[in-house]
Amino acid sequence: MTSELSTADQAALTSGSDFWHTTPVEAADLPALTVTDGPHGVRLQATDGDILAGARATCFPPAVASASTWDPGLLRRMGEALGDECRAMDVAVLLGPGVNLKRSPLGGRNFEYFSEDPILTGILATAWVRGLQSRGVGASLKHFAVNNQETDRMRVSADVDERTLRELYLRAFQRVVTQAQPWTVMCAYNKINGVYASEHHWLLTEVLRDEWGFEGLVVSDWGAVVDRVAAVRAGLDLAMPGPDTTGDRALVDAVEAGTLDAGTLRRSADLVREMIAKAGKRERGSYDAAAHHDLAREIAGRAIVLLKNDGGLLPLRAEGQTIAVLGEFARTPRYQGGGSSQITPTRLDDALTQITASTSASVSFAAGYGDPGKGLLEEAVELARSSDVALVFVGSVHETEGADRDSLDLPADQLALIERVAAVNPNTVVLLSNGAVLLTSPWEARVPAIVEGWLLGQAGGSAIADVLFGRVNPSGRLAETIPVRLADHPSYLDFPGEHGHVRYGEGLHVGYRGFDAREQAVSYPFGFGLSYTTFTYGEAVADGLQIRVPVTNTGDRDGREVVQVYVSLPGSRVRRAPRELKAFANVAIPAGETVEVVLNVERADLAYWDTRLNRWLVEDGSYVFEVGTSSRDLRATVTSHVTGDAARVPLTADSSVGEWFADPRGGALLGELFAAAAAGAGDATTAALTADPAVLMMLGSLPLGRMAMFPGSPFTTDALADLIKAANE
Amino acid sequence: MTSELSTADQAALTSGSDFWHTTPVEAADLPALTVTDGPHGVRLQATDGDILAGARATCFPPAVASASTWDPGLLRRMGEALGDECRAMDVAVLLGPGVNLKRSPLGGRNFEYFSEDPILTGILATAWVRGLQSRGVGASLKHFAVNNQETDRMRVSADVDERTLRELYLRAFQRVVTQAQPWTVMCAYNKINGVYASEHHWLLTEVLRDEWGFEGLVVSDWGAVVDRVAAVRAGLDLAMPGPDTTGDRALVDAVEAGTLDAGTLRRSADLVREMIAKAGKRERGSYDAAAHHDLAREIAGRAIVLLKNDGGLLPLRAEGQTIAVLGEFARTPRYQGGGSSQITPTRLDDALTQITASTSASVSFAAGYGDPGKGLLEEAVELARSSDVALVFVGSVHETEGADRDSLDLPADQLALIERVAAVNPNTVVLLSNGAVLLTSPWEARVPAIVEGWLLGQAGGSAIADVLFGRVNPSGRLAETIPVRLADHPSYLDFPGEHGHVRYGEGLHVGYRGFDAREQAVSYPFGFGLSYTTFTYGEAVADGLQIRVPVTNTGDRDGREVVQVYVSLPGSRVRRAPRELKAFANVAIPAGETVEVVLNVERADLAYWDTRLNRWLVEDGSYVFEVGTSSRDLRATVTSHVTGDAARVPLTADSSVGEWFADPRGGALLGELFAAAAAGAGDATTAALTADPAVLMMLGSLPLGRMAMFPGSPFTTDALADLIKAANE
Repeated sequence: MTSELSTADQAALTSGSDFWHTTPVEAADLPALTVTDGPHGVRLQATDGDILAGARATCFPPAVASASTWDPGLLRRMGEALGDECRAMDVAVLLGPGVNLKRSPLGGRNFEYFSEDPILTGILATAWVRGLQSRGVGASLKHFAVNNQETDRMRVSADVDERTLRELYLRAFQRVVTQAQPWTVMCAYNKINGVYASEHHWLLTEVLRDEWGFEGLVVSDWGAVVDRVAAVRAGLDLAMPGPDTTGDRALVDAVEAGTLDAGTLRRSADLVREMIAKAGKRERGSYDAAAHHDLAREIAGRAIVLLKNDGGLLPLRAEGQTIAVLGEFARTPRYQGGGSSQITPTRLDDALTQITASTSASVSFAAGYGDPGKGLLEEAVELARSSDVALVFVGSVHETEGADRDSLDLPADQLALIERVAAVNPNTVVLLSNGAVLLTSPWEARVPAIVEGWLLGQAGGSAIADVLFGRVNPSGRLAETIPVRLADHPSYLDFPGEHGHVRYGEGLHVGYRGFDAREQAVSYPFGFGLSYTTFTYGEAVADGLQIRVPVTNTGDRDGREVVQVYVSLPGSRVRRAPRELKAFANVAIPAGETVEVVLNVERADLAYWDTRLNRWLVEDGSYVFEVGTSSRDLRATVTSHVTGDAARVPLTADSSVGEWFADPRGGALLGELFAAAAAGAGDATTAALTADPAVLMMLGSLPLGRMAMFPGSPFTTDALADLIKAANE
Repeated sequence: MTSELSTADQAALTSGSDFWHTTPVEAADLPALTVTDGPHGVRLQATDGDILAGARATCFPPAVASASTWDPGLLRRMGEALGDECRAMDVAVLLGPGVNLKRSPLGGRNFEYFSEDPILTGILATAWVRGLQSRGVGASLKHFAVNNQETDRMRVSADVDERTLRELYLRAFQRVVTQAQPWTVMCAYNKINGVYASEHHWLLTEVLRDEWGFEGLVVSDWGAVVDRVAAVRAGLDLAMPGPDTTGDRALVDAVEAGTLDAGTLRRSADLVREMIAKAGKRERGSYDAAAHHDLAREIAGRAIVLLKNDGGLLPLRAEGQTIAVLGEFARTPRYQGGGSSQITPTRLDDALTQITASTSASVSFAAGYGDPGKGLLEEAVELARSSDVALVFVGSVHETEGADRDSLDLPADQLALIERVAAVNPNTVVLLSNGAVLLTSPWEARVPAIVEGWLLGQAGGSAIADVLFGRVNPSGRLAETIPVRLADHPSYLDFPGEHGHVRYGEGLHVGYRGFDAREQAVSYPFGFGLSYTTFTYGEAVADGLQIRVPVTNTGDRDGREVVQVYVSLPGSRVRRAPRELKAFANVAIPAGETVEVVLNVERADLAYWDTRLNRWLVEDGSYVFEVGTSSRDLRATVTSHVTGDAARVPLTADSSVGEWFADPRGGALLGELFAAAAAGAGDATTAALTADPAVLMMLGSLPLGRMAMFPGSPFTTDALADLIKAANE
């Protein structure tokens, strides 16, 4: 495709022309494309001076909130809307979604990511990408890979074993690539096991292209390229930002010197051209800002997680209850995080205004905390004392790209507000605004109701009022566990690492997998969320990997239930988390009605990564499917047999005596050889070796090759070579 | 030294002639030496047929017990006694001590190891080696290294980061090598980070010889050599067992082919000859079996840990209290573990006989559990009901080399015995016999007294009676934490690994370090143990690294206190466990008296391993020394400033802007460069880069070299090279 382009033009195509544009090649009629940050809005640079200040666009709920909807349909619609805004703003590629796992609740960029679970992340992100790309706008699946912290993110090596990498940290990427083919994948800043993501041939080429069949291009995170030639060689196609004339020249020199294959550079340039061609097909257009705001409100309403609601305090009545709205966040909303994803919203709803508009009764407000200090607190307490209901708005002060948090605690002045208000008003509702988990354990017992509001985007204020007054029956579910203490978290001992390395010591036990493995108490488990109605589950049945379960809305309000399927394999030959989410369904169930919910588990999601065979493997066995309303509230269980993949670990000199005997063919051959030895001259040593029960026990774990070297072994190393050949024929 | 030996003779010298002898070379007047298993007795093969059946020798308390004495003086005396028995049996090298850390309480060979702490392990093992070698008999420090499990021990790779390796898993080896120069070090079966210990050049040569200055020889664990040439090249000197004529020939061939340096083989052979020469100097002798039995009894008595003693139930009175002795272990003692360390004792004391001899009152016995089943339980409960005191002897059924445990629970029939007896007799004492930690949490609240008796060797029965009747005032302390649940243990998620790898995911947080880091409740903490008297601590004072604290015996019995010093460094620049044992003193304090206990912390023990500088580093700062009677009962605190090691991490292009500014010289130079750029043409970009607070914040973590590549950087890559040179001059 680029055969007519010079090497220099090819090189120029593979770096940007400035912060947000690809390099145009006029001679070849290749225009510059605009790429810009997402993922929950289109942040198009608006002024020359500030690379991060954006033009107005809809600020949808960040991923921390949209993930809590557990609804791929909503994510698809958000993607479509974002695509429309990109078309209106002539953006070709929107830099999202971010599908890194929330390894630690301290991760500074968690608000841009979906979940601690790769299946939930993958399903939601796939829907988002499909929605966006249905508009002819490209996605950029990021940050590939294992970019789970901000601390030292430009250098740190995430040291993680391959099984964990495959089953947890790469699994959502794999799903989105294979099911939605994003136009681009963005390589991360960090190293993985010592190698920069931007130079990681195994990651960018062997896994991404050769195994997963990725057809798009790999773009660097902004400034992630350390060595252009090494990066292109590894599989990076587009280095951003630009210009990078030094790097372009280095590529040309390398091709001319023969140290970089010309075909490699040509293929990268071709991929850029293909993207330009695809982008050229999209229509320009406009979008309906009011409709997008309404969509942002709908998603936000569905994202809110009702954590506690003792005595049915919520929903509030629209009349007759005087309400104290306390906390600055009710007036000045916390609705997105800081850094490259920060949007200049088309409008901004605050909760105070929306609450006031929702009730005919008296609503009063006090800021409660902030710079003027103690006076604010006393004023709030007095309002709470004289009102029927107290709504306390608290949350994290700041979450941003570029820095991790060091605590999961609310600020002291906000904690004081909760304590003092709860002491004077028994109808206290705490409403949280936060980009990642905050501890509720220090105060949750003192208040009857808790609403987890995350960062809800520009329409969050309306959505909160919708839920408070019951116009929306809450159905959001936790996409991340709320622990009792930070020290309980699986990642606690190894975050954020030091001296350039962070060891993923918890391995497979990320998030709820770790809490479950250690049987730890949590404040609120993964998948948890209350409703204003109640649901009961009937008996589950399985037909292969399709699980069906009747769910009844036993209350007097319509509602939504998120039915979750967790899978385990008792007696598995490999270590596994006690249960893993493998499917879920988000269903609306009218009051009093029963719906038969159908859940399809994908066979590939049952596979574990076998490091001996270097492949995915579905084990044969009776899998247990636990169906429930959270990871720790499992209502129905059904078992289904799955026929495993055919796979045999070859027998070698390093295979133990026990492994030889466990293999039908190997065992028979070794048995013959032992029998022959016992009948012959080797008898004395065989007898000696097996005379003591302790020796016998150790024999099973003895590699056969080592046995051959023991004095007076029953067989020679030559005989062993023949045996191995025969066993594997 | 071996210049007169042929290459073939050199090769023959570096492998055994049979299971327990080195190869003699008659022409060079080199006799065969006998090497045999320890470490808590001399197990000399007694019969041809069974390589593990030993001649009679004193069975001293295994390391699990001797470590609980926290008394290097006792360990030295044990080593001396073992040396005398070796001389009597013509043994040149006794295969011990085993100083592997108890990474998991499930480790099958934990009974042969000392502790979960490397300082305690190192101090005790050093004393043992000095004692043994003072008799002209060689020690074999084993299993080098990171051999912390039996599962797949011949192949498994212990995957562990270098800081953890240095500070935890190698630290006891380092102490013993540098302070006691054992004649031999035994390399382990397993791999470390993918390389067999027997072929690990870094481990056997760079660390052991070059860094630590080891002067002895490296012997293989029996059957640990996979490739003789690779092993000799890595630093292995003596492969056991033998003969290994194939391997000997391979060495000769490799030397002739030039693939193995002739000097390397010669040096190994020289080390074997040196050992033969040293062994030739030892005198033959006999030993006093009765005196050694008495020593075994003394050590056992000091090893017993009194875990609980509500209401002063213990010690028992020598008259007037009828006693029910319940549990087969009282009659048939569990006193050592299985495998290569199993001793045929010179005599064997059982607790039942010794208790009966200790009191004038009635002592009755019931087996309580075992094959005949339920009848035994009922009989025991009836005896308990009709006696003043019930002593319940329970413990692990079997611990052995070659297999790890899969649970920390007592067998069901023993649990039933405790429950039923405790229900009918309020004066129930549980006496544990076990080679490694058992959970007490399921039943500890139901009984007033618990005696942790470990595996106590051949005189354990007498020692138990000594403690029960107060002839010995218990002073044993836990050398390993007793957790509430197995799932709480730091190693829980990664033991024993699978598919050939075990990841040391908890890193530095081994044993109490992990429980403390996560602020977890434990049943009994590291260092814990009660006495029949009580001690109070006065104020601690520090003079440099010498800590002094007055300790008063406030009871009416003489007793021993084990005063422990735990160190922390608030504000350390590296992750550390909350506190680490760095010194202890075992002091006898007469009733009513006060002793000023002096504890010397070694400066080297304060160092952490810096992976950037690849060296030990003592940080500058105010170290906190907490002095107490267990890791969680800290009675006095004192702070002492320690001047750190001079060390500077060189500044590079990979150093971040923040790191440059933190360095006085680098910061000044970079500041000048920035100022010049701002004054000149680069101004616009510098201004653009620093216009946004988010960008500014990210700047600190940006590697300087990456900044140079950003569009319009304030400096070029050439200027950067000059800067780096100037900064490090």
